[in-house]
Amino acid sequence: MKILLKIAYLGTAYAGFQAQRGVSCRTVQETLTEAATRAVGKPCRITGCSRTDSGVHAKGFCASLETEDGTPVSIPPEKIPVSVNHHLPPDIAVLDAAPVPDTLHPRYSVKGKEYVYVFLDSPTRDPFYEGRAMYLKKPLTDDDVQIMNCAAGAFIGTHDFSAFMAQGSKITDTVRTVFSATVRRVGSTVEFAVSADGFLYNMVRIMAGTLLAVGQGKLPPEAVETIVGSRNRAEAGITAPPCGLYLNRVDYNEPIPWALCSPHTERSERL
Amino acid sequence: MKILLKIAYLGTAYAGFQAQRGVSCRTVQETLTEAATRAVGKPCRITGCSRTDSGVHAKGFCASLETEDGTPVSIPPEKIPVSVNHHLPPDIAVLDAAPVPDTLHPRYSVKGKEYVYVFLDSPTRDPFYEGRAMYLKKPLTDDDVQIMNCAAGAFIGTHDFSAFMAQGSKITDTVRTVFSATVRRVGSTVEFAVSADGFLYNMVRIMAGTLLAVGQGKLPPEAVETIVGSRNRAEAGITAPPCGLYLNRVDYNEPIPWALCSPHTERSERL
Repeated sequence: MKILLKIAYLGTAYAGFQAQRGVSCRTVQETLTEAATRAVGKPCRITGCSRTDSGVHAKGFCASLETEDGTPVSIPPEKIPVSVNHHLPPDIAVLDAAPVPDTLHPRYSVKGKEYVYVFLDSPTRDPFYEGRAMYLKKPLTDDDVQIMNCAAGAFIGTHDFSAFMAQGSKITDTVRTVFSATVRRVGSTVEFAVSADGFLYNMVRIMAGTLLAVGQGKLPPEAVETIVGSRNRAEAGITAPPCGLYLNRVDYNEPIPWALCSPHTERSERL
Repeated sequence: MKILLKIAYLGTAYAGFQAQRGVSCRTVQETLTEAATRAVGKPCRITGCSRTDSGVHAKGFCASLETEDGTPVSIPPEKIPVSVNHHLPPDIAVLDAAPVPDTLHPRYSVKGKEYVYVFLDSPTRDPFYEGRAMYLKKPLTDDDVQIMNCAAGAFIGTHDFSAFMAQGSKITDTVRTVFSATVRRVGSTVEFAVSADGFLYNMVRIMAGTLLAVGQGKLPPEAVETIVGSRNRAEAGITAPPCGLYLNRVDYNEPIPWALCSPHTERSERL
């Protein structure tokens, strides 16, 4: 048995989740490994469900926790969040923990993930969303949001998403299945939520930039389907900035027996 | 005519709104005065609607903007937010501006103010609420919230609120009229909202601490009325920490002709 952790972090201060050679900025993985090692009392290894870019946030990231020597983690799962959080900085928290079979891989056993991209379109910038949304100087009307939501429908289904992958990415299998894609107003923000069996590098941020171009009248809504079909990155919109992106939810092939089974993660979908 | 500003700020980094002698930490007033002076191009004076404590936040603080030499501010009101925001740090923003008669005083012409106190009671701490709520390790049940809401009813009306004033305060007129006082769950938080014609020093934070004691079963709900009647600070609960407190709204004796009349401030009641 190993331990699966559910994690939330404000990505602003980190060079993404994954430890990288030659990057001087801290990563979430390094910070979490040190905290877990202190809490467990022996060297630990953390493996994440995905990389996230520098500045990207997470409300339901998953990662496995194992000891380097392969012995079981001595802390009961329901006490792991508080024990590890005690050694973490305020911008990272373990929300929950679960014992899972050794065969579950935090990355390769993922069935689906949900990301949310947040646009803030208030008439002036808002200190409470600083670093937490992409700010649009010109507000989106209800019609704009409705058109973006219709356009997002073109993402749904199994497609080659090459047009929505950062250039230079080495991935060759560029087919992914998008389960849902919606755009809706939530208070002073407009949120694009997308779930899929997997995502290419920068895929959600390019989707968000493309839908924004639709909302701003720079692209007709029917263009999105054409762009998907083009498999050409140059046809799609900008890569929206990382500060608006949240990894909200990760689902595995088997149900995860979360210890706290917290209503928290359900409730805290909104900031 | 002078200009009234509507301001939002994250109070974490500031020693409250008002400039104070002998305090080395920056205040919102100083920061805003410098930014307005740069935007307007001549020395400006900022007068706030109230002091707020170190670490307290605001979503609808009001302050007047005047030039030191008494000449009119040359920027049209609808352009003031963007002009001043350009010179402000990310944790302060001007949301709106309005021309108002010189007889309107940002503090003494106030008809009422609304504060919100936010408790976060998720099973683990949440990076997205760090410095933005009082964290409770033990979640409040729906019954607890209901009992707190009933207890808050005892604040409504005209009372001597001496029991809810920080000891050492020099105020002698301790009678205030509370218009509304409610407690409700909002996602992973529990919010206490209170509006009144005025507030004593630390009044909302002591009210919040007292309602929390009721929710946690340390005080019976009917005790709140008795505490109000006692006029004794020692009878009330703790002074809840400043990070959970937000000045949400200020109303004046006359309607304010806000230039942007932003739906923003209505919409962004929630984080």
